Amino acid sequence: MSQAYFDHNATTPLDDAVLAAMMPYLQDRFGNPSSRHGFGRGARQAVEEAREKVAATVGAHPSQVIFVSGGTEANNLAIRGMAAVLPVSQIVHSGIEHPSVAKPCRDLQQQGWKPRTVAVDRDGRCDMNDLAQSLRESTGLVSVMLANNETGVIQDVAAVAQSARAAGAWVHTDAVQALGKIEVDFASLGVHAMSLSGHKIYGPKGVGALVMDKRVELLPQISGGGHEKGLRAGTENVPAIVGFGVACELAVNRMLQDAERIGALRTEVERGVAALGGVVFGGAAPRLVNTSYFAFPGVEGETLLMALDRAGFAVASGSACSSGSTEPSAVLLAMGVAAELAKGAVRVSLGRANTRQQVQEFIAVLQVELGRLRSMLSVELV
Amino acid sequence: MSQAYFDHNATTPLDDAVLAAMMPYLQDRFGNPSSRHGFGRGARQAVEEAREKVAATVGAHPSQVIFVSGGTEANNLAIRGMAAVLPVSQIVHSGIEHPSVAKPCRDLQQQGWKPRTVAVDRDGRCDMNDLAQSLRESTGLVSVMLANNETGVIQDVAAVAQSARAAGAWVHTDAVQALGKIEVDFASLGVHAMSLSGHKIYGPKGVGALVMDKRVELLPQISGGGHEKGLRAGTENVPAIVGFGVACELAVNRMLQDAERIGALRTEVERGVAALGGVVFGGAAPRLVNTSYFAFPGVEGETLLMALDRAGFAVASGSACSSGSTEPSAVLLAMGVAAELAKGAVRVSLGRANTRQQVQEFIAVLQVELGRLRSMLSVELV
Repeated sequence: MSQAYFDHNATTPLDDAVLAAMMPYLQDRFGNPSSRHGFGRGARQAVEEAREKVAATVGAHPSQVIFVSGGTEANNLAIRGMAAVLPVSQIVHSGIEHPSVAKPCRDLQQQGWKPRTVAVDRDGRCDMNDLAQSLRESTGLVSVMLANNETGVIQDVAAVAQSARAAGAWVHTDAVQALGKIEVDFASLGVHAMSLSGHKIYGPKGVGALVMDKRVELLPQISGGGHEKGLRAGTENVPAIVGFGVACELAVNRMLQDAERIGALRTEVERGVAALGGVVFGGAAPRLVNTSYFAFPGVEGETLLMALDRAGFAVASGSACSSGSTEPSAVLLAMGVAAELAKGAVRVSLGRANTRQQVQEFIAVLQVELGRLRSMLSVELV
Repeated sequence: MSQAYFDHNATTPLDDAVLAAMMPYLQDRFGNPSSRHGFGRGARQAVEEAREKVAATVGAHPSQVIFVSGGTEANNLAIRGMAAVLPVSQIVHSGIEHPSVAKPCRDLQQQGWKPRTVAVDRDGRCDMNDLAQSLRESTGLVSVMLANNETGVIQDVAAVAQSARAAGAWVHTDAVQALGKIEVDFASLGVHAMSLSGHKIYGPKGVGALVMDKRVELLPQISGGGHEKGLRAGTENVPAIVGFGVACELAVNRMLQDAERIGALRTEVERGVAALGGVVFGGAAPRLVNTSYFAFPGVEGETLLMALDRAGFAVASGSACSSGSTEPSAVLLAMGVAAELAKGAVRVSLGRANTRQQVQEFIAVLQVELGRLRSMLSVELV
């Protein structure tokens, strides 16, 4: 049975053009970019061309791009690296950040930092009044994500950055989920640092970038050879970096057309979900057009996920990164969703290869599976 | 013109079997191992099978293997991660460690740690008396590499570990260059942690591992999702991990046969080098059979490297990781080599695809280029 993949916020397949661009670097062009001979120079040139592509995609200068192993490392480097050069004070982040932002912030407590969480409203938007309140206390660093991985809700990061800068804080944004889905412009967001990832945009796993305002500093978290201007040591992952560059180009070129087509599919998903009695989370906020996060009261998300998987549809329940856990989504709890409803959460995140036929089949299968699960539930209740 | 690649200690080409094993994970099997659906479960299974292969290669249990982005990250995780859970004291490393060990040790000074360097002899072997001397002071951690990247000299890490353990210290070894070239057995080395890398053994860039004795602890340096048992967050680089596993298997299967054939080629290289008036570094010590590190008095290594590159041979001068620098090799200086001779250092590191014909052509070209450079030098001296 063929599987329909509806989990693009967890990871995406490599675009054919990305893989084609990577292949020479997985074969004959295998040099170490630090080597001085021809093999090395070829690899160096490929890395620098990719850096230009990534920079151009987010309106930055290539010298602002630090290649790392992925979005999680980019977030850790930003939080830990900037905190290491700032006087110890308060660190502020939203209540719906990815664990790779929230955990490093919590870890900083050991060094005397005071983490503070900014509330979000029922639709998952950052409460700007609570942010202003937080910033009354001396604050070194603020981190608010551009788009949430679970709900797809888009934050007004430019406004967050303005408030934070006015309070003298540095600002970081995790743009991993936003890239390729909405316009991401480093300068107009006004942040000091921004995290990107390859494998969420039809690029390879094992690569990401931190884009930095060069007026702020950063202590490297992995040191050794002077790679990446001394900010991130280790032999560059050349094939993945090349693929990331091409994936960025494609993301820009295809964004409008993808958004329109995928947005129409999402509308169809949510029409079906509503007709079957589902509740959509964050539906009233601006969202990434590919993401739909919903629950059916009384039906456990994990159970529904497994039923859909058996029926040929790959969806998520909560974020993939904490799917080892059976706790209800921290994002939904922060939005004030009741724990019982939050346990029902299922995420559909659509992508380039999804079709209208898949969506129609999905709604039909969803109806069948919900019927089955609800009837089992009512039997249990007798 | 076809290039002969003689720089396998910098990086190796992917073995065809490794790339073949990776391809499905660069195509249809693209799932995120944290996802619960079929795509995710397939990726998870591939990661765990690779973990078994890596563990088996070094005589460890799969649960001891933490996948990271490469050797540099493994070294940083070991040094920073273990230091973070130990009482602040002395940290001891040899004078010829890779910068990804030496720099994190130096960075720890900010937290009160006292780095101490153990001397090496003229052939690049750790001075065991100096180690014993060092260990009279209370020491938390000792790090000595198994084989040096520049000279190929092999250290008696088992003896180092015995001394260090007797002094109550934890022991780490950087086995990145040794893996695939000599037998590497975690238990018989007696270390607490060991770093490995994929791209030095005909595996992919962007992946490595830290192998840990589970009786010691480690503070993660990249936190977020609970990946790698909470010790290293971030979506697993599945294709690279799969390739690393296969490369480990191949390394074991081919080691004896590679060592014999490549060792014979190295003997031929060094016979030629000696006949042309070259000095081989570390020649009296046990060395990796593929590595030859030498200099011709009066001839600058960098100039010779470029001349050889133009003539079709890719060699290194010093280690690739610090080749941005024009300083003489810190390894050679630690061995007591005069700075002027050290500046002449050229490294040939042979690999599986190299042939006897390439080596013979190399010696012929070396003779021509040396003649040319020496005649230019004598003109300048007139």
